Amino acid sequence: MLTNPAAKYRRFAPVGLRDRTWPDAVIERPPVWCSVDLRDGNQALIEPMDPARKRRMFEALVRIGFKEIEVGFPSASQADFDFVRQLIDEGLIPDDVTIQVLTQAREHLIARTFEALQGAPRAIVHVYNATAPVMRRVVLGLDEDGIVELASTHARMVRELAARQPATRWTFEYSPEMFSGTELAFSKRVVDAVTALWMPGDDLPELGKCIINLPATVEHSTPNIFADMVEWMHRHLERRERLVLSIHPHNDRGTGVAAGEFALMAGADRLEGCLFGNGERTGNLDIVNVALNLYTQGVHPGLDFSDIDGIRRTVEHCNQLPVHPRHPYVGDLVYTSFSGSHQDAIKKAFAARNEADLWDMPYLPIDPMDLGRSYEAVIRVNSQSGKGGISYLLEAEYGLELPRRAQIEFSQAVQAVMDERGGEFSADSLWQIFDQTYGIAEAPQVVHQVITEGDDGRVRVQAQVHEKGRAMAVIGHGQGPLEAFVDGLARAVGVPVQVLDFHEHAIGEGAQARAAAYLELRVGDRTLYGIGISTSIVTASLLAVLSGLRRCEVPLRRADAATV
Amino acid sequence: MLTNPAAKYRRFAPVGLRDRTWPDAVIERPPVWCSVDLRDGNQALIEPMDPARKRRMFEALVRIGFKEIEVGFPSASQADFDFVRQLIDEGLIPDDVTIQVLTQAREHLIARTFEALQGAPRAIVHVYNATAPVMRRVVLGLDEDGIVELASTHARMVRELAARQPATRWTFEYSPEMFSGTELAFSKRVVDAVTALWMPGDDLPELGKCIINLPATVEHSTPNIFADMVEWMHRHLERRERLVLSIHPHNDRGTGVAAGEFALMAGADRLEGCLFGNGERTGNLDIVNVALNLYTQGVHPGLDFSDIDGIRRTVEHCNQLPVHPRHPYVGDLVYTSFSGSHQDAIKKAFAARNEADLWDMPYLPIDPMDLGRSYEAVIRVNSQSGKGGISYLLEAEYGLELPRRAQIEFSQAVQAVMDERGGEFSADSLWQIFDQTYGIAEAPQVVHQVITEGDDGRVRVQAQVHEKGRAMAVIGHGQGPLEAFVDGLARAVGVPVQVLDFHEHAIGEGAQARAAAYLELRVGDRTLYGIGISTSIVTASLLAVLSGLRRCEVPLRRADAATV
Repeated sequence: MLTNPAAKYRRFAPVGLRDRTWPDAVIERPPVWCSVDLRDGNQALIEPMDPARKRRMFEALVRIGFKEIEVGFPSASQADFDFVRQLIDEGLIPDDVTIQVLTQAREHLIARTFEALQGAPRAIVHVYNATAPVMRRVVLGLDEDGIVELASTHARMVRELAARQPATRWTFEYSPEMFSGTELAFSKRVVDAVTALWMPGDDLPELGKCIINLPATVEHSTPNIFADMVEWMHRHLERRERLVLSIHPHNDRGTGVAAGEFALMAGADRLEGCLFGNGERTGNLDIVNVALNLYTQGVHPGLDFSDIDGIRRTVEHCNQLPVHPRHPYVGDLVYTSFSGSHQDAIKKAFAARNEADLWDMPYLPIDPMDLGRSYEAVIRVNSQSGKGGISYLLEAEYGLELPRRAQIEFSQAVQAVMDERGGEFSADSLWQIFDQTYGIAEAPQVVHQVITEGDDGRVRVQAQVHEKGRAMAVIGHGQGPLEAFVDGLARAVGVPVQVLDFHEHAIGEGAQARAAAYLELRVGDRTLYGIGISTSIVTASLLAVLSGLRRCEVPLRRADAATV
Repeated sequence: MLTNPAAKYRRFAPVGLRDRTWPDAVIERPPVWCSVDLRDGNQALIEPMDPARKRRMFEALVRIGFKEIEVGFPSASQADFDFVRQLIDEGLIPDDVTIQVLTQAREHLIARTFEALQGAPRAIVHVYNATAPVMRRVVLGLDEDGIVELASTHARMVRELAARQPATRWTFEYSPEMFSGTELAFSKRVVDAVTALWMPGDDLPELGKCIINLPATVEHSTPNIFADMVEWMHRHLERRERLVLSIHPHNDRGTGVAAGEFALMAGADRLEGCLFGNGERTGNLDIVNVALNLYTQGVHPGLDFSDIDGIRRTVEHCNQLPVHPRHPYVGDLVYTSFSGSHQDAIKKAFAARNEADLWDMPYLPIDPMDLGRSYEAVIRVNSQSGKGGISYLLEAEYGLELPRRAQIEFSQAVQAVMDERGGEFSADSLWQIFDQTYGIAEAPQVVHQVITEGDDGRVRVQAQVHEKGRAMAVIGHGQGPLEAFVDGLARAVGVPVQVLDFHEHAIGEGAQARAAAYLELRVGDRTLYGIGISTSIVTASLLAVLSGLRRCEVPLRRADAATV
């Protein structure tokens, strides 16, 4: 049994802000968004991003529409330093985007930070130091005066170093670390001391509005208390009109999104967070979630998530962490309805809906089409049996372990047949639908395969695809046999083909064993699965590509000379 | 780019409750908890739970301490009907636990529901009907009077059928469906009509307090608006002192936890939700999250999560869905610190902490020990290289793909050596630590393996384990070779051994290929990984078991006659 927490844990400290205004506020415009995926997100990964992943993440963030992007902690990591230099030296920063870098308030780290930023057209230098009582006592061994002195000294140093690099348009940002765990009056005192030193002047006439960032480094309380704290700061900070008030919530109590929204209602101007809430421990504020919450109340977030699955794939690739199937707005299951009464209500509401109507769809708070997704009514086969689902039957009877998105896709095919024929399905009739959908029994043959690896590690595939008496030659190159085959095939049929996801497993054992391959493919502008089964694990994956092409009705035609 | 939402989506409708009290309220005691894992959770699974999984989930819920458990929708599903009957007929419901079943407000469904409950000692009958405008218009085709009439008719019917089964102690529960999307005044009108019919009387003198459950069937707004709605109902409902006010939040906007907490502050008495937030679409309220949020503010939730990983394993098994690595309180990464400055602060704070102190640990909002977890400082090897992490090097150099929890475990071993020796590590020195930790090079041999499958499908394994010139015979039985070997080995060494998780993959290809097996084991009361490598996929897994035993210093002794 859990021990008695009353002896060990402290109650939240309420703010007592009886005249709070945030509970009546309505968010009418989006905040300034700042992505910290490449810094706070990256530092919380088991495998930090390599340079290629960082570049891919940066480009995705720019495409989404972020204008402020924290790209690293260059004084703490050579890899981060190199990435900042690459962005600047290779001119990769668009004119309307400003990079931001983090540094602790320590002399040599600040110096190194300005070194990393030499030649940047614009930059935000983000300095932090600890202010929370536990940090003062245990880590820094400083009293309140000491902390104010520490912050002021380094704020002055930031200003001096910036003035020596006048080609850059500077903005300064300051975070009192663990604002969520610091006495409000003391947070105000430190912040006021810093902002007094950071107003434009003769040395820095173009200095941007200074950003005061209040981190819930650890989420300590219900989000109403955090909102009270932000509203208190918003009302009491000196020079408020010369500041951008920024918030940096974490999610330890599972209420980071609410904290971010309330902070905007309480007077904040800017939010720092990560895509799909990556970050230390339970993660940073999920910017996608907050942005789409705004969207569903009629406020355009100014960020583009119209291909949310593409963004998810990029984030999963860069972070090497999955997005959960129930993650708001993007999870595999969030536009999926399993219940008959839900399906019925949605069906009726779609039928009753006129194009110009406000969105008012039971069980669907957002139109999935706006995000490049679609609503999926997943029916259950033999639902009365309790374990007679489609994927259960396919696995139990045929050894097929469909990946989750393939399960959802295939259930649509079953739904279509069921709508026509009604009733329940046996495993046998399911197999027939599966076979017809993915073209298993009538799959083409891929023969005369020659797979060679060159001295440079590149693979060359040569093969013949036979279908209904016609043959097509395929020759391609890639990192492996599948990539090489897709390369050759795409050129042969004249349609772009891309492999988005790959699963393969054995069916059966020993001499009878076969392999089933499931490829999530993008063929032209469609995303769908192709599935292949063969005694060879390579052939199974090649057949899966052909299965996907067949489903898009791409004809297999003999390659002309130019493509070989 | 996302389309303009202002033309398509509706603003939240604020309640305008200017004299709200919830933002100043403090939660001082836990609510009545009701798990809906077996109903709302189960109906949102790709594969609904089979009977064995339902039973396992029910037993876990009882162990955690739930006193009210919604076990199904027996009138909609034969599987649910059968499960309710099993619980009653086999006497599986503890004396202090009440089962709850859901039914739509339709005559034949209510009749079938009471049939399912015959002989139950106690039961909550939970009736719902649609009240939201879109549902009235599109699905039911009824006006407000029609809905009140529909609810009243079926409330009366529930009462009549209950009175005919007087051996059961009844409680009634009513949900206006999509309370979150219904006009407040109308919700009150319907609820008042129902509760007027559900007070104790001569026919039902023992009737329990009636439960009024307000579902955020779809989360429609920021949680402060939901809180205002709940406070409004709490203040305006008739017969409030005779009601248990219950809340059933979903998580479409990612703010379900906040909505649940605020509802308690606004006057609710009871929460419905699921473990780790399973449920339709984005899930139900995460009860574990809310309960442990209470815990960290010094209020005992009355639920036991002191073995949170064991509960996670049960939930993952039953739901066949993973818990995300960043899930609050339970994810693999939430007590993990990757950053040097965080690790340093935590180390200092642990050193400064006295046993009797309040918990005030930077970056750790809860003591992981309270949940049977531990804090993990994950260091990075060659962190300057950007991709020189421990698992990266092991994979790149040795082809080893450690499962995530094994990565975290192994990093502790590296940390320990690093604390002693300092500096950075090469792949080679990492391999040495790996080899020493898991005993790869000096692994025992498992020879003379004979694996036979009987007519009943049971597998018998016979083998000899050779280590340092000593031999031990192992004979065991199980569903497969690994289970059978573990069975035999556990008896031979006299220590209980259980396999919690299993991963295996190939290293290399062709004739040189070997298999690496990673077993998460419980040996006695320790949970740890054992790892084995062999040219045979079976032998690799058997060696992994032996690796785990060796790490627990369980001696391999010759089995005596009695164990063979």
